[in-house]
Amino acid sequence: MTFLFNSDARRGAIFADAFARELPDVPFTIDAATVDPDAVHYLISWTVPDNLARYSNLEILFSIGAGVDQLHLDAVPPNVKIVRMIEEGIVRMMQEYVTLAVLALHRNLPAYLAQQRAGEWRDIPQAQVGSRRLGVLGLGQLGQAVLDRLKPFGFPLAGWSRSPRRIEGVTCHHGELGLEEMLAASDILACLLPLTEDTRGFLDADLLAKLPKGAALVHTGRGPQLDHEALVAALDRGQLSAAMIDVTDPEPLPAGHPFWSHPKIILTPHIASVTQPATAARAVIENIRRHRAGLDPIGLVDRSRGY
Amino acid sequence: MTFLFNSDARRGAIFADAFARELPDVPFTIDAATVDPDAVHYLISWTVPDNLARYSNLEILFSIGAGVDQLHLDAVPPNVKIVRMIEEGIVRMMQEYVTLAVLALHRNLPAYLAQQRAGEWRDIPQAQVGSRRLGVLGLGQLGQAVLDRLKPFGFPLAGWSRSPRRIEGVTCHHGELGLEEMLAASDILACLLPLTEDTRGFLDADLLAKLPKGAALVHTGRGPQLDHEALVAALDRGQLSAAMIDVTDPEPLPAGHPFWSHPKIILTPHIASVTQPATAARAVIENIRRHRAGLDPIGLVDRSRGY
Repeated sequence: MTFLFNSDARRGAIFADAFARELPDVPFTIDAATVDPDAVHYLISWTVPDNLARYSNLEILFSIGAGVDQLHLDAVPPNVKIVRMIEEGIVRMMQEYVTLAVLALHRNLPAYLAQQRAGEWRDIPQAQVGSRRLGVLGLGQLGQAVLDRLKPFGFPLAGWSRSPRRIEGVTCHHGELGLEEMLAASDILACLLPLTEDTRGFLDADLLAKLPKGAALVHTGRGPQLDHEALVAALDRGQLSAAMIDVTDPEPLPAGHPFWSHPKIILTPHIASVTQPATAARAVIENIRRHRAGLDPIGLVDRSRGY
Repeated sequence: MTFLFNSDARRGAIFADAFARELPDVPFTIDAATVDPDAVHYLISWTVPDNLARYSNLEILFSIGAGVDQLHLDAVPPNVKIVRMIEEGIVRMMQEYVTLAVLALHRNLPAYLAQQRAGEWRDIPQAQVGSRRLGVLGLGQLGQAVLDRLKPFGFPLAGWSRSPRRIEGVTCHHGELGLEEMLAASDILACLLPLTEDTRGFLDADLLAKLPKGAALVHTGRGPQLDHEALVAALDRGQLSAAMIDVTDPEPLPAGHPFWSHPKIILTPHIASVTQPATAARAVIENIRRHRAGLDPIGLVDRSRGY
């Protein structure tokens, strides 16, 4: 019944403390070299270890991050449950970052930063919040939490997901037709989609062209979802006004890439949301308790969807 | 019973519509040249007109902005009420700007912007919200509204005002001793004080030195409250980590001033909050109704305090 922690020792120590306190009957180790592989029932990792097959009694593979696109799902035996990381630290940081990004774009921060660099003191016409429509791609835990945090500001809110959702105070769209409807009414579009084969290249030239002229983009999904050249082209011809981008493809972004120096792009190095070990340990422990009680863990991956 | 609008015609037209609809018994004009001065009972203006004395029946002088520091209060006869602009547009924009600024400083945006310019992809250690204490200087309508909007994010919140206040979820300080207490516990300090003789030069080297090392500053009060050289010195020696500054002295900021190019300063040209004519007209009309009903207008200036 051992829990094997396959990541950095600093975070492992925080997990170890939590397991000793909360789940003392589950032996905890960060030492894959000396563990009895048959004893390992739970494993947390960023990627799938090459030698996964040696853990013959594995029941759950936990991703250490919110996404599972870095896990090769096919490499995991079908009887092993795969669980995404959903913990309050990740959720809170994503709420902070997307609120920051939406307000920065709403209040024309990229243009004011360019003016600051140019030594120019000039106010820019400011749309009021009621006429700045916000659309969120992805209505899972993160998308919903972000919409919840943005509600008090008064933006008209919409969201899109693959399957239908109902969220109070949010116009919910789904499917192909729903996507077109939402894009046409999104002055600020925020992408929080998981990376799957369906969402690779999702933010392409066609999609950006369906936004209202002068719209702005927040991207906190995954780098391969965004056609980087299409974004630069849309910014340069004024179809988009600005973007705040946290994920790129590849990461780190290579030297000389136009995102580094584009005056309408604020770029951050994939820091929007990071698993926080103390709250993550609590979430993992709670999921082991659920699993032992015969319940599905929170964040159980549907392999057919890929997330 | 005439209302004289002494500001730009574009905003005046929006006020005129609102008065025609809501207060048709009060004649409205933007034409100071042809108005019968004795008929003017209400005047809205940014500064005190030189010829104020000609309006012998003036009852209320409305400021078109949230501050009244630009009005020479002594030039206004003592029987004339002076009223600050408190309207939902100003309040909402200030909530947006200060939330944007606090999140930008919390999430190390100035440092990430510097890294972007340098082509550097590197994550910066991120304090979590529970250990990032926020202090707000000024607990009037704007300060309280800003604290209210920041509450859901989970920052420990404190505020300071001249006289005692009670605000749920906010540690309220007042007076000299209270100021020292709050400064010592403010990792991010936001100044929303009105400009008075007491607050001129308030944000000086001494005050900045009382903040925890590495604290950050949001300044949306008035430029003359901040010792600009002291801020640059505090940033350069690491006492402060970053600042987001919307007001300067003078405005516009002169060419070559260090705020333009300082890598730890985000500078915006006094755009945090601007009177919105439609909501401002409603607020002024409501105040005239209150005045006629024998009530004090909302935002009545206490001349002894200067705001």
